[in-house]
Amino acid sequence: MKIKFETDYQEGACPEILARLVQTNLEQSSGYGQDVHTERAKALIRTAIGKENAEVFFLVGGTQTNTTVIKSLLSPVEGVISASSGHINVHESGAIEATGHKILTLPGHEGLLDSQELESYLENFYADPTHEHMVQPGMIYISYASEYGTIYSKHELENLKSVCKKYGLKIFLDGARLGTGLTSEKSDLNLKDLANLCDAFYIGGTKNGALFGEAVVFPKPEEINLKNFKTLIKQQGGLLAKGRLLGLQFEILFEGDLYFSNARHANEQAMKIKAAFKKKNIPFLFESYTNQQFPILTPEQNKFLSEIFSYELWEKTSDGNSAVRFCTSWATSNEAIGELINAVESL
Amino acid sequence: MKIKFETDYQEGACPEILARLVQTNLEQSSGYGQDVHTERAKALIRTAIGKENAEVFFLVGGTQTNTTVIKSLLSPVEGVISASSGHINVHESGAIEATGHKILTLPGHEGLLDSQELESYLENFYADPTHEHMVQPGMIYISYASEYGTIYSKHELENLKSVCKKYGLKIFLDGARLGTGLTSEKSDLNLKDLANLCDAFYIGGTKNGALFGEAVVFPKPEEINLKNFKTLIKQQGGLLAKGRLLGLQFEILFEGDLYFSNARHANEQAMKIKAAFKKKNIPFLFESYTNQQFPILTPEQNKFLSEIFSYELWEKTSDGNSAVRFCTSWATSNEAIGELINAVESL
Amino acid sequence: MKIKFETDYQEGACPEILARLVQTNLEQSSGYGQDVHTERAKALIRTAIGKENAEVFFLVGGTQTNTTVIKSLLSPVEGVISASSGHINVHESGAIEATGHKILTLPGHEGLLDSQELESYLENFYADPTHEHMVQPGMIYISYASEYGTIYSKHELENLKSVCKKYGLKIFLDGARLGTGLTSEKSDLNLKDLANLCDAFYIGGTKNGALFGEAVVFPKPEEINLKNFKTLIKQQGGLLAKGRLLGLQFEILFEGDLYFSNARHANEQAMKIKAAFKKKNIPFLFESYTNQQFPILTPEQNKFLSEIFSYELWEKTSDGNSAVRFCTSWATSNEAIGELINAVESL
Amino acid sequence: MKIKFETDYQEGACPEILARLVQTNLEQSSGYGQDVHTERAKALIRTAIGKENAEVFFLVGGTQTNTTVIKSLLSPVEGVISASSGHINVHESGAIEATGHKILTLPGHEGLLDSQELESYLENFYADPTHEHMVQPGMIYISYASEYGTIYSKHELENLKSVCKKYGLKIFLDGARLGTGLTSEKSDLNLKDLANLCDAFYIGGTKNGALFGEAVVFPKPEEINLKNFKTLIKQQGGLLAKGRLLGLQFEILFEGDLYFSNARHANEQAMKIKAAFKKKNIPFLFESYTNQQFPILTPEQNKFLSEIFSYELWEKTSDGNSAVRFCTSWATSNEAIGELINAVESL
Repeated sequence: MKIKFETDYQEGACPEILARLVQTNLEQSSGYGQDVHTERAKALIRTAIGKENAEVFFLVGGTQTNTTVIKSLLSPVEGVISASSGHINVHESGAIEATGHKILTLPGHEGLLDSQELESYLENFYADPTHEHMVQPGMIYISYASEYGTIYSKHELENLKSVCKKYGLKIFLDGARLGTGLTSEKSDLNLKDLANLCDAFYIGGTKNGALFGEAVVFPKPEEINLKNFKTLIKQQGGLLAKGRLLGLQFEILFEGDLYFSNARHANEQAMKIKAAFKKKNIPFLFESYTNQQFPILTPEQNKFLSEIFSYELWEKTSDGNSAVRFCTSWATSNEAIGELINAVESL
Repeated sequence: MKIKFETDYQEGACPEILARLVQTNLEQSSGYGQDVHTERAKALIRTAIGKENAEVFFLVGGTQTNTTVIKSLLSPVEGVISASSGHINVHESGAIEATGHKILTLPGHEGLLDSQELESYLENFYADPTHEHMVQPGMIYISYASEYGTIYSKHELENLKSVCKKYGLKIFLDGARLGTGLTSEKSDLNLKDLANLCDAFYIGGTKNGALFGEAVVFPKPEEINLKNFKTLIKQQGGLLAKGRLLGLQFEILFEGDLYFSNARHANEQAMKIKAAFKKKNIPFLFESYTNQQFPILTPEQNKFLSEIFSYELWEKTSDGNSAVRFCTSWATSNEAIGELINAVESL
Repeated sequence: MKIKFETDYQEGACPEILARLVQTNLEQSSGYGQDVHTERAKALIRTAIGKENAEVFFLVGGTQTNTTVIKSLLSPVEGVISASSGHINVHESGAIEATGHKILTLPGHEGLLDSQELESYLENFYADPTHEHMVQPGMIYISYASEYGTIYSKHELENLKSVCKKYGLKIFLDGARLGTGLTSEKSDLNLKDLANLCDAFYIGGTKNGALFGEAVVFPKPEEINLKNFKTLIKQQGGLLAKGRLLGLQFEILFEGDLYFSNARHANEQAMKIKAAFKKKNIPFLFESYTNQQFPILTPEQNKFLSEIFSYELWEKTSDGNSAVRFCTSWATSNEAIGELINAVESL
Repeated sequence: MKIKFETDYQEGACPEILARLVQTNLEQSSGYGQDVHTERAKALIRTAIGKENAEVFFLVGGTQTNTTVIKSLLSPVEGVISASSGHINVHESGAIEATGHKILTLPGHEGLLDSQELESYLENFYADPTHEHMVQPGMIYISYASEYGTIYSKHELENLKSVCKKYGLKIFLDGARLGTGLTSEKSDLNLKDLANLCDAFYIGGTKNGALFGEAVVFPKPEEINLKNFKTLIKQQGGLLAKGRLLGLQFEILFEGDLYFSNARHANEQAMKIKAAFKKKNIPFLFESYTNQQFPILTPEQNKFLSEIFSYELWEKTSDGNSAVRFCTSWATSNEAIGELINAVESL
């Protein structure tokens, strides 16, 4: 059995969550999020982001969350701007288009949008006399950490916000990897900053210790029409019957530091992997300071490592080498990391 | 704290499932259903339904399941025929229409479609010279047990199938309540019958002991285009990252008799409730032999019971009484039933 | 060759329109409604309805118009209330559902919604504790004249408006048959009334002398988000490249009395048909005072008439007779009417 | 009044069509394409393409045609491959996405797809282990002539077909500009070739002498599920009530050589424009041999010409010049061309 570094969702849930599930199993709750755990989780998140009036909703998974938020923020002829590498553009099977909306792509820079490119795009769009025949830009979609493990600086996010404000676009941040993003040694952002900078974002549970679950946050609900948002979650298939399960998990993650300590652990294990490859002068495809690491392996290195570990082939490089991805998570053990470091050292 | 009889999903999961979740928590699995538990669950279900070539997929919840199956079986101008009381027509927030398909409603008879009415509808449809301007009937949607706790006889299902065959319609059975349907004392159907009679059906986990999860079965995949069905699940937001959680739960439910014993327990508790109300000559809205019971209470009876128990108001009757719903489940304790029986006796 | 009374769109255009098309054929115009004829047509319609700030758009056909207006007025979880006999519910091939919206049907009364039934429906809807899981009523769709040739009184429309106002619903009136509705001898409404009572309505050209074309009117654009409505027309396939053709036709129809004189002619011819059947004591399915007449024929009568005329079979009645439809239009000649009257007299 | 070279749809219809409209105006026809003109037009087109079993449908405009054909050829998780410059990707307001389908873009080469790039894209797609989470390529969309006036050679089309065959993709050719494409001096294709090479294509009327109208052709209907295609046209808003108008126009265009002579005229006028600019050594953005010409003008040249003529600004070039578009059509007069040539000569 190989040691798996394939994804950040290959184990179950962190033990605190399982224990609480067992302990509360026979509590009787009303369905669909009308329960005390969900209420408490919302309150904890409002406090964590520093917005007492924020609206918080819990959904099962990321695709549902992306479709539901995007569908709620756009009018029928509006589209969502995304880096071409954005998860919604590549790996969600056309779920956004299935809601009737186009994804307007801009080049990604290691997974990130560039605020100047965004501004030129918008300038050119409105300068085009035929723009009435085109999908209207309505919002931007960004991810933090990105699909490539990279993160925006606070300054870059502020620039994006300022362009969006100028052109009337909403900002939605996909936080499937929010924990590892915010606890990265290179991050200069926190939850309160995101609450100030975004119109909507979500706090990913699936990749950070929960069995499943994403917490969508609308920090300034007074600026957005959220009437019927819960009905929309139902329509998009994201409303869990036993909603208590979602509330409960976020309650535990946010009643102490668990959400962040899980993520910190993942990042620390990833930094050890990074250091090991660096030590051997093995190059990287992206300079990531979060839980995804993308070393570029020669065929020999790849053959050797892949006999002991499983990890994802990211892309073939033009010189015949393989950029691969190692993922860590809250569950990555010191033993697994030790074995990997030893193997890398012996390359 | 009132004793709750509101729904069949108010507790967590049956203890066998929780125990296995804890026990396997640190197993490393590939995501999205590429794991050994999912494989084993599929094999167990294939055996249970007597179709070794059946295709089986696991989704998180019922709305996703209904939209994904219906979208996969219809062409763009086709609609799905449902009793007007069908869950897809009433309580799914327009999720089917959000996929672009119309629901063509026929009157429900205590929640059930009538095969003769279906046949006349289809006969009239094709006799109408303007039918080329109308939504084409492509399939029927039925539920077992229905939203009103009622069930089809084998004979009625065979009649429906024969009408559907004549007119080229597919049959999809919503099995959110399949356990209590099949284990009802009035049922003359089993899983193998359903596999012969339906083009698609699902085995509901959420209401029968699982934390969540529905197993979709296509018994005769060679007659249907299922290429890309998994991609469609993803598009519709039903593909769980930690797919192992779905497989594992159905593995436990079907490796022994647990799926049926959970349901039998719910039905037995419901029959005790039914008997208690019958003994007091309290009338019922529907004659249900499954886990939902719909007694009609006078204002006084309702006031008295609602101080001790919570249950759902189903509808006001014209004479000012209240038809209400009591639900039982795998989790309904003898103590709770005892208290309810005592209270009913004292009415 | 039989004389056709099948529909109100079986001939081309009224001669004034054809003449102007020929006369202006080589004028060079910008596309998509950026031309002087379109501007003038808009101005004429604004004057006719008494709202100088109204927004007016021209589309090719009715289905496009219905989908575009409804899609623009609803949010994703909202549906449109219609009589079950409404054109959008029966004869548009699921075009509304294809935009993702459910049609919420109420019983029709000879094609008309009843304001009291609407109010009870809405009262019950919001009283239902599960309404968060249901499609939210967002607007009503009514037609004038209706699919059955019937019309609302001003009083009835005011009642509908008052219910809609109470519950926050928009009113959209399908005016495919607006000409014959407004010029009916029983009508107590005019264009200015409609502009006061509706949030949106359209003035049908196709059935009233134009080659094609429907003029959508939003009398109070300040109350509705119409930004990007033209882009939505394009998205829904209703934006004609040679938009001048649409503007030109409405320019002619509204620069004098042509729109109304065309319709008056159709109604007058229909009243002659009505009188002829009445004289023979032949019953009618609906009491229509517009250009559609629905006599109920015995098999013998039907056989005799159908050898000379073509008309539509509407429905078989339970006693074996046939309710049929005779349609007149701006083009129905006195000769054709004379032949029909003679034939009816000889029954 | 400036002389307009803005688009190929700025005048009405060619005189033959208007004359026939006038002549047949009072013929009574059944609606929606059930008339003798439509039947005859279909027969003429079948003969012209050399496929007696072809299915032919008439729609009002291009956007409807594109959405209807694409929706009919794709399953829910499939997308359509297009050059990024494709009309469906740029100028149809998200109409394709509104049907739920993603457009998968490849780089355009002066508006054309490259068969080798298509093949690598497909090879990489299926090699990607995560492709089950991605939109599946289902068809290609190409235009002839393209949005940039360029055309495929027969050899290039055969290469595209061979790649499509290998990967099971359908080929759909947008023929909004088919007339000028096929009659270009550089074209080595004819209607029969297209019928052999494409699964669906359309013959554009709007830009080639008709008031409006596009004829969709499925040359090999036995290979495609076309059941209910007419119902789909209705759903997508493309079914004209007075369908006779569509049939009649194509009847005239194809009963003699009119379709091609109209287009030849447009190309000849364009070649005169091309020659005039070439004579002055003015460069072009694209090397077009059809009715769109894209000279690149200096600010002075642009200022001078734009005072006499109107034409479209295509794009600013990096050195401050303006690539502009001059369009000709069946209606472009020798006088207008003469004035333009004189003006160019005087630059």
